[in-house]
Amino acid sequence: MSEQKSVDMGNFPELENGNRILLGPGPSMVDPRVLRAMATPLVGHLDPYFLKIMDRTKELLKYVFETQNDLTIPISGTGSAAMEASMANMIEPGDNVLICVNGYFGLRLADMAKRYGANVSTINRSWGEIFTVSEIKEAIKSSSAQIVGIVHAETSTGACQPLGDIAKVVHDLGGILVVDAVTSLGGLSVGVDEMGIDICYSGTQKCLSCPPGLGPITLSHRAEEKLSKRGTPVANWYLDLSMVQKYWGSERAYHHTAPISANYSFYEALRIVAQEGLEDRWERHRRNATMLWEGLEDLGLMCHVAEEHRLPSLTTVRVPENVDEAMVRKTLLQDYNIEIAGGLGELKGKVWRIGLMGFSSRAENVLVLLAALKKILKL
Amino acid sequence: MSEQKSVDMGNFPELENGNRILLGPGPSMVDPRVLRAMATPLVGHLDPYFLKIMDRTKELLKYVFETQNDLTIPISGTGSAAMEASMANMIEPGDNVLICVNGYFGLRLADMAKRYGANVSTINRSWGEIFTVSEIKEAIKSSSAQIVGIVHAETSTGACQPLGDIAKVVHDLGGILVVDAVTSLGGLSVGVDEMGIDICYSGTQKCLSCPPGLGPITLSHRAEEKLSKRGTPVANWYLDLSMVQKYWGSERAYHHTAPISANYSFYEALRIVAQEGLEDRWERHRRNATMLWEGLEDLGLMCHVAEEHRLPSLTTVRVPENVDEAMVRKTLLQDYNIEIAGGLGELKGKVWRIGLMGFSSRAENVLVLLAALKKILKL
Repeated sequence: MSEQKSVDMGNFPELENGNRILLGPGPSMVDPRVLRAMATPLVGHLDPYFLKIMDRTKELLKYVFETQNDLTIPISGTGSAAMEASMANMIEPGDNVLICVNGYFGLRLADMAKRYGANVSTINRSWGEIFTVSEIKEAIKSSSAQIVGIVHAETSTGACQPLGDIAKVVHDLGGILVVDAVTSLGGLSVGVDEMGIDICYSGTQKCLSCPPGLGPITLSHRAEEKLSKRGTPVANWYLDLSMVQKYWGSERAYHHTAPISANYSFYEALRIVAQEGLEDRWERHRRNATMLWEGLEDLGLMCHVAEEHRLPSLTTVRVPENVDEAMVRKTLLQDYNIEIAGGLGELKGKVWRIGLMGFSSRAENVLVLLAALKKILKL
Repeated sequence: MSEQKSVDMGNFPELENGNRILLGPGPSMVDPRVLRAMATPLVGHLDPYFLKIMDRTKELLKYVFETQNDLTIPISGTGSAAMEASMANMIEPGDNVLICVNGYFGLRLADMAKRYGANVSTINRSWGEIFTVSEIKEAIKSSSAQIVGIVHAETSTGACQPLGDIAKVVHDLGGILVVDAVTSLGGLSVGVDEMGIDICYSGTQKCLSCPPGLGPITLSHRAEEKLSKRGTPVANWYLDLSMVQKYWGSERAYHHTAPISANYSFYEALRIVAQEGLEDRWERHRRNATMLWEGLEDLGLMCHVAEEHRLPSLTTVRVPENVDEAMVRKTLLQDYNIEIAGGLGELKGKVWRIGLMGFSSRAENVLVLLAALKKILKL
């Protein structure tokens, strides 16, 4: 055993409270109740009390997803892990997969699908636009896709993809529909059962206003059946839902140690959603987004997405010519403690991304952001 | 949009504080400082302040792993995710992998390795025993293994595998050594650099006494080089360290949203380790384990592992004949709020598993457990 150097603790000071107003693409701000829940002393991951919380969390999550699906759980990783779980559990090598790409997260889905050995086809739209049902139908036919992935709320563009009739088309052609609802769940209706979605996943740190760390996911009976009939093991151990569901189901078989504190905080975040009520929550997101859009227009700033396809949870604003977009963000953060984000991928440098999600979706946040932008941009 | 039913909140009461004395195989109890850190209001995952905390966490983690490895980070999943990251990043389809199996987690490593397309060989020992260097050497030769996986601290058996000279043998034959230190890191010396380990991973919820949710991992230059020279993409997107390291390194490229609160709590947990000092911490674990072993012997109970190979962090105790092992655990939990665990796999029903890890490794916890066992077993 070698002699240990001791650590100079002066280099490692206590945590500070950043006191940020989080108006980026997530994490959103968190109700103090959720933070307190996170600080609850731990119990074991097989403790009868924790098992009760798991069951209650599943019930509340079913309410939020608007589904009766039994396999509705939080994955023990962030939204990206839930996204990967959807691909890993559905795809067997050689499967034909169609991904609709109109932003960064469509590209990510395609990347993941390839890693699981799928033949991936894509259809593409400009970032900020949406797909029509008929073009999706044609693409399924020409690619013989058994799995179709589409993003409901593109966090990189702020566009909202209408879901009506897509599942019908996918199902008529014998496929499975996977929907990314990372930036919509809890902020606008996703309607898993009504829309006929087979796998829907999200993150906790957006419209559900819980710290990042879990990835809610739900599987329809069709998706569960496809999983149970695989000829090959799921190529990802940690995200293998055939094992994970035995822990979340009645068997309570140990798979991995559940993140207790994250699940505690998520339970509290879901309770808050239920207390507000989904419809009132959607309406609040819509109301504050409209206030933002009107305010931006008054300042002469232009939204990137056509109004009828805009997400209430995430707005992309075009950076005016001759404005240093990074400087604006830096000033917002340094002088006013406000976080917004820049563009991703194709939209890098061209837009700002403003999130009004969950606890962050508040009239006072809209006002202070508009006032700060007005000052910084000298409008 | 369908009409929403409202939720009957009576079915979803507030969280309770279970007030458990956690003496199972993890999660261990958590210092209130760590819980408070977890409740710190959030900043964004690219906030300059969070980037600072990431850098400090890396430094403290290097101290705990006893390494200078630059690629030393917490994976955004539990210890099992870090375990899978070790396999996913090193293995390309067709690689020969040798796993040393003397417990449940060796089996898990082998399962994971197979999912990444490796030709997996195993050598096996009874659960509770350890391997000799010479048998590992022979097995590497006969299997032509390029990657060797071994468990330092078998959480299922309580046995501690000595690591000295294993790396030399692996390296002489051109391989990479992967070591599971889930139940040892922070409780006894792992000595990544001194032992020549190429990949070492752990969990946060054992001897580091942080809530579960992150998986600390470190890669040697040899392992980093192997990763950079892959001919195929890492088959797991979420755990692809070639991308994750760009977020934890100077590029700060977005990969997934880091679990902010979990990282905050982990930073605080590592500060506590550094303040105590590694050697004092190891000594405390040793002292309290010895007290437990002596107390068990006084009660006429028998440890499953030979004393020289016992882990100070986890003790397996043989269930006496004619004792209902599950009833004992249930009574401990119900009457005294003490959690211990039953056996896993081969040892199911045959042993209890008692953890004295991190904040749980305290003289008073040893005393109350011994007293409670004496009462319940009428010894």
